Amino acid sequence: MSRSEFNVITRYFNSEKLAFAADGIALGIGDDGAVLSGTGGSLLSMSMDLLVGDVHFPKDAPANAIATRALGVNLSDLAAMAAKPLCFTLGLAMPRVDEAWLELFSEGLAEVAQQFKCPLVGGDLTRCSTTAPLTIAIQVHGLHDSNKPVLRSGAELGDDVYVTGFLGDGALALLSLGLHSHLNLTRLNSSGGLSQATETYFSNAFYRPEPRIELALELGNLMHSAIDISDGLVGDLGHILKASNLGAVIESERLPYSSHALGLVSRDSCRSAALFGGDDYELCFTASPDREDEILAVASKIGVKITKVGRIAAGPGLQVLDGAGQSIEIPNQAFDHFREPSA
Amino acid sequence: MSRSEFNVITRYFNSEKLAFAADGIALGIGDDGAVLSGTGGSLLSMSMDLLVGDVHFPKDAPANAIATRALGVNLSDLAAMAAKPLCFTLGLAMPRVDEAWLELFSEGLAEVAQQFKCPLVGGDLTRCSTTAPLTIAIQVHGLHDSNKPVLRSGAELGDDVYVTGFLGDGALALLSLGLHSHLNLTRLNSSGGLSQATETYFSNAFYRPEPRIELALELGNLMHSAIDISDGLVGDLGHILKASNLGAVIESERLPYSSHALGLVSRDSCRSAALFGGDDYELCFTASPDREDEILAVASKIGVKITKVGRIAAGPGLQVLDGAGQSIEIPNQAFDHFREPSA
Repeated sequence: MSRSEFNVITRYFNSEKLAFAADGIALGIGDDGAVLSGTGGSLLSMSMDLLVGDVHFPKDAPANAIATRALGVNLSDLAAMAAKPLCFTLGLAMPRVDEAWLELFSEGLAEVAQQFKCPLVGGDLTRCSTTAPLTIAIQVHGLHDSNKPVLRSGAELGDDVYVTGFLGDGALALLSLGLHSHLNLTRLNSSGGLSQATETYFSNAFYRPEPRIELALELGNLMHSAIDISDGLVGDLGHILKASNLGAVIESERLPYSSHALGLVSRDSCRSAALFGGDDYELCFTASPDREDEILAVASKIGVKITKVGRIAAGPGLQVLDGAGQSIEIPNQAFDHFREPSA
Repeated sequence: MSRSEFNVITRYFNSEKLAFAADGIALGIGDDGAVLSGTGGSLLSMSMDLLVGDVHFPKDAPANAIATRALGVNLSDLAAMAAKPLCFTLGLAMPRVDEAWLELFSEGLAEVAQQFKCPLVGGDLTRCSTTAPLTIAIQVHGLHDSNKPVLRSGAELGDDVYVTGFLGDGALALLSLGLHSHLNLTRLNSSGGLSQATETYFSNAFYRPEPRIELALELGNLMHSAIDISDGLVGDLGHILKASNLGAVIESERLPYSSHALGLVSRDSCRSAALFGGDDYELCFTASPDREDEILAVASKIGVKITKVGRIAAGPGLQVLDGAGQSIEIPNQAFDHFREPSA
């Protein structure tokens, strides 16, 4: 099997007979979310994510941590659309009813729901067999009061390419937490234990992704295009380029790494994690160079780190340059949910 | 473990800290769907269902049958709100990518999507482990152009109680298909095979539930309250009674059974299947006796069988009468997704 998630979607689901156009639907398959317009005034964006135990999170992780991650990664999709969170629905297939687990899970959800003013409005609970993994479906819904939805297809020639926060922490968190990663990264000092601070940092990076909602709402249509980095910068920026029919040049020396990342693995490994890792749930967006001052001012006001890492170019495809200005080879290793596990 | 799905929802999810009120949300947890009002003009209803392989459908069932059932049961929730289907999202966790399966699954979805003019607009595909069950999350979205949402809480004292179609076929389909049911029903003639017509009938009852969208849209607010019968008439009408703070009397002799049901099991078993079974996905609704002629005319025009089976009463609780006017004991066996399997 080598067909990727995107090919599966294109071939079997994004067809005229299934994903047909209809009144009230402003945007269907192919972006961070769908957009409904049939509801009168504001546009409504929505996005669904499935999280499966031992695929997307360790099944024995604390329930509140699973919850904050599950809702956080979904809200990150709303940030990528510049939608203001409205509410979410929850589907939960559980092998058993564990009251202590549910209590903690509900607390984790409530924490994020309150932070982003995004209450639970419905869903479905069901039992699965005792050997089946816990599976979580979350759909988030957000409004566009003042901003139009920011799409993957809106990049313009000459746009700057920005990322928020640090990149690579998501993939390195897997290493730090002892989980499987499709990248073969090795720790600098694999014999010693990690400091408590480093463990806490990566645990938060994994379980408490920070959806960039506030930044996205403030920047709004200053962003020509945006996506959240769930599959690594190369893969996700690639979606913008494909949707916008443009190319880009990334200067890899500009990529922002946390001090914890640089303490855990080599700089080269940080770069691999940023480019080909995943689970960062930072935003990648493009904007006109003319608006750089405004953009930096907004980010500074909100207190979110943003970094200009490259530029949108005419040619097709993505070029990643090293410090000497040489192209880095891009192996076909951007995260793919459907690739066979390497072992 | 004996806490039911509803108790789990009430205790852990329908809390002020998680399911809090917010602008733009007309209705949260507790009905067939949530209703959004923050989007300007029309109200938007939405409902999510999870279906897990070997819990909600046999994992080896034809993929198109799984698909028609998955989307059909979700659309049934929109019918119960009197919402006009707008679009749906799909989450799919698959143990492997099987192209032939996906092709068929997509065909099944497309068939129902086209019938109800309800296209796919987005979702999430992911791999689960090869030993995990296929899990399907579907969320349907529907508009209220001319009707207000019909809620469980709208029943009025003296209302007639109607059901659509035949009851019990869903539970009997499990028996017919050789699947597990929580009811201990036995076939009248368990040694002989079933006729092809009977097998086909029950296979369709299970895999091709007919969401009563057209009837619901035509009846609209003639229905004071409505619910779809997924857990048996007793359990689902019970939700209406609880939400409306009223009681009801059902005359069990009026319950409509198909000829296939009456050929498969005794009349008493048909009654058990109707009252305590599940998976019927017919509507139960209440309406003023003054509007009976109008209601019958609408049903007749559309060609949907409806049956008046009882009346809303003042007292709390649900009374089910047999042919002699005696109360039938209602064991606590309405379907509960969280009860331990009986063995």
